[in-house]
Amino acid sequence: MSNILLRGCRGVVTWSPDGDYKVLTNVDILIENGKIRSVEKSGDISVSERECTVIDCRDKIVIPGLVNAHTHSPMVLLRGYCDDLELHEWLQRMWEVERHLDENIVEKASELAIMEMISTGTTAFIDMYFYPHVTAEVAKRFGIRAALGPPFIDVILSPDKVARDLEHFCKVYSEDELIMPIVNVHSIYTCAIDTLKLARDIARENNLLIHIHVSETRKEVFECKQRHGKFPVELLAELGLLSNRTHMVHLGWVTSREIELIRENNATVAHCPVSNMKLATAGFFPFYEMAQQGVNVTLGTDGAASNNCLDMFREMKTAVLLQRNNYWDTRIKAMHVLKAATLGGYKLLRLNGGAIEPGKLADLVLLDADSIYIQPLRVDNLVSNIVYAATGRDVAMTIINGKVVYDRDRDYTRFKERVTELSRYLNQFISKFYGVTF
Amino acid sequence: MSNILLRGCRGVVTWSPDGDYKVLTNVDILIENGKIRSVEKSGDISVSERECTVIDCRDKIVIPGLVNAHTHSPMVLLRGYCDDLELHEWLQRMWEVERHLDENIVEKASELAIMEMISTGTTAFIDMYFYPHVTAEVAKRFGIRAALGPPFIDVILSPDKVARDLEHFCKVYSEDELIMPIVNVHSIYTCAIDTLKLARDIARENNLLIHIHVSETRKEVFECKQRHGKFPVELLAELGLLSNRTHMVHLGWVTSREIELIRENNATVAHCPVSNMKLATAGFFPFYEMAQQGVNVTLGTDGAASNNCLDMFREMKTAVLLQRNNYWDTRIKAMHVLKAATLGGYKLLRLNGGAIEPGKLADLVLLDADSIYIQPLRVDNLVSNIVYAATGRDVAMTIINGKVVYDRDRDYTRFKERVTELSRYLNQFISKFYGVTF
Repeated sequence: MSNILLRGCRGVVTWSPDGDYKVLTNVDILIENGKIRSVEKSGDISVSERECTVIDCRDKIVIPGLVNAHTHSPMVLLRGYCDDLELHEWLQRMWEVERHLDENIVEKASELAIMEMISTGTTAFIDMYFYPHVTAEVAKRFGIRAALGPPFIDVILSPDKVARDLEHFCKVYSEDELIMPIVNVHSIYTCAIDTLKLARDIARENNLLIHIHVSETRKEVFECKQRHGKFPVELLAELGLLSNRTHMVHLGWVTSREIELIRENNATVAHCPVSNMKLATAGFFPFYEMAQQGVNVTLGTDGAASNNCLDMFREMKTAVLLQRNNYWDTRIKAMHVLKAATLGGYKLLRLNGGAIEPGKLADLVLLDADSIYIQPLRVDNLVSNIVYAATGRDVAMTIINGKVVYDRDRDYTRFKERVTELSRYLNQFISKFYGVTF
Repeated sequence: MSNILLRGCRGVVTWSPDGDYKVLTNVDILIENGKIRSVEKSGDISVSERECTVIDCRDKIVIPGLVNAHTHSPMVLLRGYCDDLELHEWLQRMWEVERHLDENIVEKASELAIMEMISTGTTAFIDMYFYPHVTAEVAKRFGIRAALGPPFIDVILSPDKVARDLEHFCKVYSEDELIMPIVNVHSIYTCAIDTLKLARDIARENNLLIHIHVSETRKEVFECKQRHGKFPVELLAELGLLSNRTHMVHLGWVTSREIELIRENNATVAHCPVSNMKLATAGFFPFYEMAQQGVNVTLGTDGAASNNCLDMFREMKTAVLLQRNNYWDTRIKAMHVLKAATLGGYKLLRLNGGAIEPGKLADLVLLDADSIYIQPLRVDNLVSNIVYAATGRDVAMTIINGKVVYDRDRDYTRFKERVTELSRYLNQFISKFYGVTF
């Protein structure tokens, strides 16, 4: 039965044409063939129960699926590992372990990460890690959308090998419903100029998104300016890597001129507030200036090693908090980050989702309207309470491409048992480097 | 049966004499008459099951109870209300509603707040709100510790009335096991100098803690300096309000000289990172300088209207994140905030708790060691994963004064049903001012 009727949804959050959010109450949502067929006043849609699965949503809030616009999902393996280091030293410690990874470890870690993501309302993620075909297969198995591909990172992988792997990856997944091949480039500071150009050419040839860390730390910007005479975004523009198919992550140390370049080229950006704060990269991601100029701002958790969770609800809250602390005012509101995490993410992936209206992809999250932690709930405080009070634990169900990929009542216990096995397995590996297992 | 044996605890987090944390594995904790009687290698404590309740803790992590060192618990009523305003305008809107409160509303709101607190591992809270005797009774009913009393706030209540109410409050609760009367003073900017002196005298006479908001905003500091010629902490010192029985909250705009005064007087401080960020008060709570100088730093959520949750796990994470963003380095670590939230809180309340060793109060929190969201879990990443990955939702049981006040399996569904009733009731009240109820 591929059709679903979400009957009597207490509240539905979506977007108005004027850019503000809107809340619909007491509506039915009909899902057919992976898409939203109709959104009507409850009772107006008549379906035979033989034709579709009816889900009682009288105690549910429905929001568009959340897109984690930057992560390294298998890094759940390194959750809590060397947690109190600053970025560049921390990165060395991560690489030290990562050199010993194999497909098996990445598979187990991907599984753990994806269970965390779908059970907390993430419907798509943009990933950068080793053995992406392994993560892609796990994503397909669980039914979550993933944009990924082998990463250019000269300090670890030869660029020719990455190019060959990427070519193969594209062939395998070019027509996939859930998997989107992208060109992952770790950063300017870990790739030679020739590697950056190679990545650019492959992206152009195949019309792929380039996903790259940019201006995460002051050190990185300083060294880029010293080495190349340009700020990072300027360098990317000069090399032809800046286009409407470029997705830049972090941008904590970006200049006004670079923001202009981003806008002129219609590139997209991802803000990862928790990771930036935890790794003490400081800086200031100019959320308001970007959004004001029409840049598509998205939100990501980064890897669990620098967060340490993949819960987009927690990320949304921290994004508002950090920006208010930056600007010394409340110009960034709950609505802005919810939009970045939903509509922004789908726009980045060029998918027709992130809103709840007929014709959109049926990527939806059902929250418990009667959760202890978001009361008293009303129409006027719904978006506030979703962003500031809810967490992924309030998710009752996640629907992707019209399929129920997570139903807490059905899946939670099963997930928990599987996670215990995975955790034991991953700890056997990590204990070789450090750490005492219980 | 008042004795409890926590058998085979997988991991126990407590403090070493050198100030660092330590993790014990596979231990039994025996609780007798509200106190921890012994902590031994599992199997070494022999008790007859008739003498005590045995709780299987092989899949549990045990940590000391969390103290919410600053909140306005009944403000859960205003969760999500006027969420995007800055402090001083926001405060006006809060007061507008608060003028219409009655005991009934405060009772219902206290109940909602306390269910949230005990189900997320809070074992004691320092509260400032109207009708504190109502909140005190609810706290007693649920078995949570509360330090509270009527607030001096000249803009709303006459100081003489507050003094009389406080005298009565002290009489009622002076010998209470769970309730600790304190002198609540809203702030310098909402009280006359004479009111501050009155509060000081009552505190001295009865040896009570003074709990006051100080230097939350730049505006407040500026106006204090203009009006009184002194910075806020200097003014409090001059008026004799600064002592080892003074608990100051926020301190986002404090000077070095004021930190010295705090240290010299052995006063305690509470950091409320989420509230400060959400209300965009900016500034910089100097966590490191305070802790370095030996000031007892504690942690609070503030009211749910400016947070919007009372989950101390989320507060701990944000405290590290904000401080790392402030200092541009990782000097503030997971361990520091866990200590502030446990040991620091008990020290503030002059209670012998916040650590897990014989003789300490049996205020404990049991977390699921097999939670999906904190894997892979090991001894070396335990504190990290508690602070950065766990939330209050990982709490399986909360024990206060040797009693199980929350057992998720027993209480969660019951709480949820009660919360639905409370929410409906509170929304009827709040809808008079604003808002559409579902």
